[in-house]
Amino acid sequence: MSIPNSPRPRILTGDRPTGALHLGHLAGSLQNRVRLQHDYDTFILLADVQALTDNFDQPQKVRENVLEVALDYLAAGLEPDKVTCVVQSAVPELAELTVYFLNLVTVSHLRQNPTVKTEIAQKGYGEAIPAGFFVYPVSQAADIAAFRAQLVPVGDDQLPMIEQTREIVRRFGALYAPVLVEPKEMLSPVPRLPGLDGQAKMSKSLGNAILLKDSADEVARKVMGMYTDPGHLRASDPGRVEGNPVFTFLDAFDPDPARVQALKDHYRAGGLGDVKVKKHLIDVLDTVLSPIRERRAEYGRDPDTVLRFVTEGTARGREVAAQTLSDVRRAMGLFGH
Amino acid sequence: MSIPNSPRPRILTGDRPTGALHLGHLAGSLQNRVRLQHDYDTFILLADVQALTDNFDQPQKVRENVLEVALDYLAAGLEPDKVTCVVQSAVPELAELTVYFLNLVTVSHLRQNPTVKTEIAQKGYGEAIPAGFFVYPVSQAADIAAFRAQLVPVGDDQLPMIEQTREIVRRFGALYAPVLVEPKEMLSPVPRLPGLDGQAKMSKSLGNAILLKDSADEVARKVMGMYTDPGHLRASDPGRVEGNPVFTFLDAFDPDPARVQALKDHYRAGGLGDVKVKKHLIDVLDTVLSPIRERRAEYGRDPDTVLRFVTEGTARGREVAAQTLSDVRRAMGLFGH
Repeated sequence: MSIPNSPRPRILTGDRPTGALHLGHLAGSLQNRVRLQHDYDTFILLADVQALTDNFDQPQKVRENVLEVALDYLAAGLEPDKVTCVVQSAVPELAELTVYFLNLVTVSHLRQNPTVKTEIAQKGYGEAIPAGFFVYPVSQAADIAAFRAQLVPVGDDQLPMIEQTREIVRRFGALYAPVLVEPKEMLSPVPRLPGLDGQAKMSKSLGNAILLKDSADEVARKVMGMYTDPGHLRASDPGRVEGNPVFTFLDAFDPDPARVQALKDHYRAGGLGDVKVKKHLIDVLDTVLSPIRERRAEYGRDPDTVLRFVTEGTARGREVAAQTLSDVRRAMGLFGH
Repeated sequence: MSIPNSPRPRILTGDRPTGALHLGHLAGSLQNRVRLQHDYDTFILLADVQALTDNFDQPQKVRENVLEVALDYLAAGLEPDKVTCVVQSAVPELAELTVYFLNLVTVSHLRQNPTVKTEIAQKGYGEAIPAGFFVYPVSQAADIAAFRAQLVPVGDDQLPMIEQTREIVRRFGALYAPVLVEPKEMLSPVPRLPGLDGQAKMSKSLGNAILLKDSADEVARKVMGMYTDPGHLRASDPGRVEGNPVFTFLDAFDPDPARVQALKDHYRAGGLGDVKVKKHLIDVLDTVLSPIRERRAEYGRDPDTVLRFVTEGTARGREVAAQTLSDVRRAMGLFGH
């Protein structure tokens, strides 16, 4: 596998490897990445260093999930000869750039970062925020800049992260030399998939997720146990579609919107039972997940290819980051550069 | 030059290379280091990365002073075959360890660091504290741990820094594996030399310093212009010794305490003029600075040796830090380690 330097614009995306990927990832980013890989020089970061900022006491969980998530990527349809998959901890240049970027951001600015604010509240850190977690937007900025990503696919909740990166890159350019690329967001509608229990977010740790690696039987069982409209007691009753995750899932994965619309109308009017809708959802998900399951089985029999996907991607990523850091050190006029 | 791994205990000291060293450095640390180099495996860090945390807008100042300070070290009597002089920015492992250490400290704990608190107030940052400056105690902890220093020569104002390092090392050991060395302070009386103007601190940027590289004439001129007791108008008047920097300098550099005591008694009683005391101080400083000046001239004619002092020291330092980081990555169970 070798990916020559490409005239295609480069994008950077990634995940914290803290658990197997699920339908929420598929709808929220993976399907988009699979499409984008043909037209963009796609870098995907297995952000184990970032995962450690709030999992520093569970390093084995992070470690184990690096190859697990890489396998999920391949199963989902990312192609080893199109995508550069990089393990963050194996690129120490990212830490080096983070340290220099930390000088270009103030503590109060970090405090105001809306994404971090929300996450700090969610995690209940109170005043005991680990410093590594507090500064992770700076480390994200370093990732984007080190790989010279021109575009970063994000949902609008992540716009502050891109804006922070742009500010740092501009500040760096004004202070030293404009050797870094100012990234742009690639806004994509990021449907946020609710959990099986109707909770706002699907999450493996909340136990409300359908994993990409779940068997057909597990998927069927999980769908049959899904939360629907609690007021919809008999099939003949009118049911609510809003806030009903079964329909949200259909919106996300049924390729036939007209069919989904017809089901919704029927459900609202009454006369359509939950079991019937769920069976349809099982069929839809089976169509989506079957090829993923097959590819997963194939790659599962070929662990060398998965490992090569990660090690060769990491080597290429490190090469790009090393070149950037060489430019950075020269721009800053560090001793010996 | 080659320094084999040594059974001597290792100490780490260092300076931010932001200006030529002066008598304050000599009294406060350099003379001590010159003595220690014979019995300790002495690492000295040219902390250019740390200097950038509050000089990020003046990288050229930092860069220029790396070799300048190295030359001051050699002039002061540090010996290239005894001392490992390391340029911080050339050891990216320090940034890598800093990033991992950031997970082991909370933001509120950093806020309470008394040294950082004082410095933030002194610098008048208000809320605009650069994040890099805010977290520099973590970066210091990473320096100490990466070089596996057993002892850190400090004054008691720096004890919180050592305590912070110990806490981080213990936390790392408890979470991952005890592969790091818990450092101890080597408390040395650190006489703080006042400025020529009687201000609390000698500092090149305040323009109240005698530099190690000043010529004999410059030293004489500066001493003659020193602040003394403003109430001591005529030689016959009784004068104050306390808060009179001329006597503080004699305390620091005159090898004959009985002679200094006699001068103090005479000055207090009246009948000893400032000019006379200053001329004595000029003699004393000349005895201290002459050999430094001579070595400086010698090394100044031999820039290759100065450069080798820095590059070979940095290479050895990097080797030590790389070994530590290899242990750290394995202890954390990072992917591939």
